[in-house]
Amino acid sequence: MFEILHTSKKSGARVGRIHTPHGIIDTPNFVAVGTNGTLKSLDNATVSEVGLQLMFCNTYHMMLQPGTDVVKKAGGLHKFINRNLPIITDSGGFQVFSLAYGGVADELKSRGTKKHDGSVLKITEDGVLFRSYRDGSKVLLTPETSVQAQKDLGADIIIPFDELPPYHICPKKLKKSLERTHRWEKRSLEEHLRNPNGQKMYAVVHGGVDQGFRKESIDFLADLPFDGYAVGGSLGKTKSEMFELLSYTFPRLPKDKPNHLLGIGDLSSLEACIPFGVDTFDSSYPTRAARHGVVFTKKGNIKLTKGSLATTFQPIENDCSCPTCSQYSLAYLHHLFKAKELTGMTLASIHNLHFMVELMAEYRQKILTDQI
Amino acid sequence: MFEILHTSKKSGARVGRIHTPHGIIDTPNFVAVGTNGTLKSLDNATVSEVGLQLMFCNTYHMMLQPGTDVVKKAGGLHKFINRNLPIITDSGGFQVFSLAYGGVADELKSRGTKKHDGSVLKITEDGVLFRSYRDGSKVLLTPETSVQAQKDLGADIIIPFDELPPYHICPKKLKKSLERTHRWEKRSLEEHLRNPNGQKMYAVVHGGVDQGFRKESIDFLADLPFDGYAVGGSLGKTKSEMFELLSYTFPRLPKDKPNHLLGIGDLSSLEACIPFGVDTFDSSYPTRAARHGVVFTKKGNIKLTKGSLATTFQPIENDCSCPTCSQYSLAYLHHLFKAKELTGMTLASIHNLHFMVELMAEYRQKILTDQI
Repeated sequence: MFEILHTSKKSGARVGRIHTPHGIIDTPNFVAVGTNGTLKSLDNATVSEVGLQLMFCNTYHMMLQPGTDVVKKAGGLHKFINRNLPIITDSGGFQVFSLAYGGVADELKSRGTKKHDGSVLKITEDGVLFRSYRDGSKVLLTPETSVQAQKDLGADIIIPFDELPPYHICPKKLKKSLERTHRWEKRSLEEHLRNPNGQKMYAVVHGGVDQGFRKESIDFLADLPFDGYAVGGSLGKTKSEMFELLSYTFPRLPKDKPNHLLGIGDLSSLEACIPFGVDTFDSSYPTRAARHGVVFTKKGNIKLTKGSLATTFQPIENDCSCPTCSQYSLAYLHHLFKAKELTGMTLASIHNLHFMVELMAEYRQKILTDQI
Repeated sequence: MFEILHTSKKSGARVGRIHTPHGIIDTPNFVAVGTNGTLKSLDNATVSEVGLQLMFCNTYHMMLQPGTDVVKKAGGLHKFINRNLPIITDSGGFQVFSLAYGGVADELKSRGTKKHDGSVLKITEDGVLFRSYRDGSKVLLTPETSVQAQKDLGADIIIPFDELPPYHICPKKLKKSLERTHRWEKRSLEEHLRNPNGQKMYAVVHGGVDQGFRKESIDFLADLPFDGYAVGGSLGKTKSEMFELLSYTFPRLPKDKPNHLLGIGDLSSLEACIPFGVDTFDSSYPTRAARHGVVFTKKGNIKLTKGSLATTFQPIENDCSCPTCSQYSLAYLHHLFKAKELTGMTLASIHNLHFMVELMAEYRQKILTDQI
């Protein structure tokens, strides 16, 4: 499934290839997030044309709308959303625990608001019972139901059900959570292996910001026949805390299998973490930034609503070959955002995703030549 | 500029070709509305691919954002918005009088709300002074400034500045308005002819719902060297009143020049009005309907959020060759609308526009064979 083409002489960075039933993922690579089976403001044909080799869909959202049974009836996620390239799905754990703990992501990033109006009814050894924010129905998420949902979706890479403890947790509780997560991941793997069906399962390494627990998690999970390793859970509240933790964790993962850093993909984190040997990163940042009128360039970000762009009849980047830069000027994009036209979001998103694709190709080239 | 290929033996319907510096418009045809230089939720390359031969942009909106001076600096509207096919712009009169009379379009359609928070400061023989709803600045719209703005934009077909009297107006006031409109249109034409620059100007026939005034308007305008004739103003408050008026007006227009019906393009109006000899229709209805989850089919409209579509794994229409139907199912479109994904609006808009393109081609075929 995974071949390493080169490991840098300078760092832990490596260039590899993940083989899936829907084609190859060159690593390191950026993974776009299409929560509901689409990248926001883009259609999947465009996303494939831009060259994004792996797309992330959220099982939790797909369970509640349209329901994984519907996707199964459609012939699986690839067919349902018209994507012929690889897809990865998560377990739903992240989202469901965001409800329980008032927003893990928000807590981690020190933001305040909850996104979903839903509620966890019960957490037991079996799993989590919660109320759908869509129709109020009760949904039971366990290692087995999460894996079955991911079987219905049929993604190329799937994730075991795990618990996401909050950042502010005492070591004793974190230890208990870690142990339960390990039991849940083992159950998920067993459920998966009853019918692998061409899918690969990545374990999720937990342990919060405690290096000892992270080591313990790696040791436990590396003994099980997972196909790869994702790093999740609380990674710290500052970037430097996160980088320290990841510089500890990634080099300790089994080298012969692919790994993934969950939910991190901003430009400075990519630069900092690729030397640790991270293979794939997922983030909604490039598309979210685009929808807020922020586009990436080699010289830094551009805010499209900036007044001086009104008469800048150049593309975002002169040497960019994306459909947006080859057809439209900054002045036009500026105009679309000022006029509140949705088209602006689409065109900016295409550019940012193309930028990520090119950036990752450059990173791979630099690793191949031991510059990183 | 205009050649008639065939006039039906059965009605006033005709098939023709309008030649412009940016290519041919086959008539009768549907004209998509891209108020701010883009069709909502679509990029202009996609619009051209769908085969829409003429696009309508609104001078009033482009004057206020980004400003026609900016578009001129960009090299004109075609270059600014990346469209190589024909464009028509209006004079701004419709919008500016909507402010004065509390919404002409709303009044005509018996709706209540005003769209823009702006205000007309003064109407004189010279023109209209109004306050920009964007930045509060004062803008003077006269026959000359409207035409100059349309010169800056550089559309293939332009429209003289006219007054839009309200539907509820006494004959005496309507007569005065009509006479002033005629003076304004004449001034517009004179301004245009100082520097035609490859642009063509269509007169706008006024006279409200009074057939006598409509006749008077046609007689006055037909004596001037306009390149075509648009029918505007108040067309009645019911469809049957409108159809009666249009069945009177269109057959009386000079036959050797192209004509246009302003702001009407719903499916039943197309069917009713093509036999009167209408060449082009503009309407934002197909894209607005799409954004509200309504898609067109030969068997009638489909509301995409309808529950039964959740597991309808067929395209909107089986024999439709549009990018949406060739790639996505009703179930997926239903899901996108339920999940409030902008992508759904884009995909539905593409289908509806493709539907209009095909529908108009069918109408032309039926006219050529004297079925209409």
